[in-house]
Amino acid sequence: MDDTAMNFVFVHGAWHTAAHWNRVGRRLTEQGHRVIALDLPGSGLRAAYPPSYLRNDFAVLAGEVSPLKEVRLADYVTAVAAEVERAARLGPVTLVGHSFGGLTVTRVAEAVPHLLRRLVYLSAYVPVSVPNGAGLSAYPEGAASISGAVLIGDPSVTGALRINPRDGDPDYVEKGRQAFYNDLSTDEYLAFAAYLNPDLPLGVAFDDARGTAARWGRVPRTFVRCTKDQTIPLALQDRMIAEADAATPDNPFHVDTLPSSHSPFASMPDDLAAVLVQR
Amino acid sequence: MDDTAMNFVFVHGAWHTAAHWNRVGRRLTEQGHRVIALDLPGSGLRAAYPPSYLRNDFAVLAGEVSPLKEVRLADYVTAVAAEVERAARLGPVTLVGHSFGGLTVTRVAEAVPHLLRRLVYLSAYVPVSVPNGAGLSAYPEGAASISGAVLIGDPSVTGALRINPRDGDPDYVEKGRQAFYNDLSTDEYLAFAAYLNPDLPLGVAFDDARGTAARWGRVPRTFVRCTKDQTIPLALQDRMIAEADAATPDNPFHVDTLPSSHSPFASMPDDLAAVLVQR
Repeated sequence: MDDTAMNFVFVHGAWHTAAHWNRVGRRLTEQGHRVIALDLPGSGLRAAYPPSYLRNDFAVLAGEVSPLKEVRLADYVTAVAAEVERAARLGPVTLVGHSFGGLTVTRVAEAVPHLLRRLVYLSAYVPVSVPNGAGLSAYPEGAASISGAVLIGDPSVTGALRINPRDGDPDYVEKGRQAFYNDLSTDEYLAFAAYLNPDLPLGVAFDDARGTAARWGRVPRTFVRCTKDQTIPLALQDRMIAEADAATPDNPFHVDTLPSSHSPFASMPDDLAAVLVQR
Repeated sequence: MDDTAMNFVFVHGAWHTAAHWNRVGRRLTEQGHRVIALDLPGSGLRAAYPPSYLRNDFAVLAGEVSPLKEVRLADYVTAVAAEVERAARLGPVTLVGHSFGGLTVTRVAEAVPHLLRRLVYLSAYVPVSVPNGAGLSAYPEGAASISGAVLIGDPSVTGALRINPRDGDPDYVEKGRQAFYNDLSTDEYLAFAAYLNPDLPLGVAFDDARGTAARWGRVPRTFVRCTKDQTIPLALQDRMIAEADAATPDNPFHVDTLPSSHSPFASMPDDLAAVLVQR
């Protein structure tokens, strides 16, 4: 195997899928790297949809129990760790997590640190002081986030943090674009939005996602800051970087910065690819 | 670069996208190969949707002009040839076309035969005696195809061969499953169906897609027969194989067979991956 070829495994965030990585994945593959993007359980080609969503009955959708309500963070971690083990037969893996995917890659690093070359948090959650995604999203540095505006329904009823990617109302579409893809045009956003899934299982946001200094904390790691991010505001990104660096001062983040929305894989795939291969 | 690693470029069929190749792409990548699946112009992350589709107004959808009506086969060929040129910097490319994608890969082989290691037609159109997809679908050997049952609207009005992947009516869903994914369960199918696009530009079906014996006809080629295919019936697959072999008797198809629906990338990705790497 060529020593200069890297092995990437990409883990998507909430409501996203493997498909969203296509642009940056192609660029990395064209450079000779091996790229695997997987669908987390219940996502993408493994999705299960609320019946009301499939029949476009959006009044019912707001109150229907999610078919994914039993999915937990451990399910995500098991799936990704298995993929990392397969990919690592070719060499150490660069494991990239976006947004909510940061929780999963943290636990995967805890499980199989010896298989990883580097962890990359792409504007992703890094649980250190607080154990889970719900806690991180409640930090005051995240108060400027506008992603909550796309949520529908009552999570205590549906068992999910639910959005409606099929809601064509222009105001709702614009809220999604502003939160996740504010550096794409509306038409460009709609193509990415068509691949979004409606349900993030609620339990995943409350499961303990922390790693230990002895395992997770020894894997070299990068944080890619996104300066125009309106889902995980830059101040929250920086607080998470600081907390992690304080927890493992001998292995601080390498920090890169892109002038992008929450989704540079969509808006600046060339720049993101360049960041990912530089170390 | 490792000599045993292959470079794959995957071209999807009508209404499909790069995302549909995820399962087989992952398996090939895990084996060390480099895999690029691209979205054809107007598809997947490059899609443009009829406004009525985005607002779930399906009565209007049947008569609305397609935003893709000006897209032609040459646009597909230009995009894929450019991707092949990038991928070929790593070594000769194995170019795989599924279904309607057979027309595009034929023209790409005509344009850049020197960059290709092999052409793979996965239950795909091979234009030899008749010039285009419309002609091939009219062969008597294709009369058993049931894919026409999912079409909606009048192509002379819409400028597209249109389906409605968001129509949740159980009868319509079952027609789609039977035509394209008859070896998946309904729940499995729904995850793949969620990634389908509504419009195949009509002009693409009428553009001349043939190659010449001197260029296309010299590229080694494989046909992967799908025995349970209800979109391109096996009899039509076999007629296309026979016509191509008669046109280039010194370079006949290598023929493989899978006991699958039209979509083995969904139902038997391991078997498909094994076929793709064997030569």
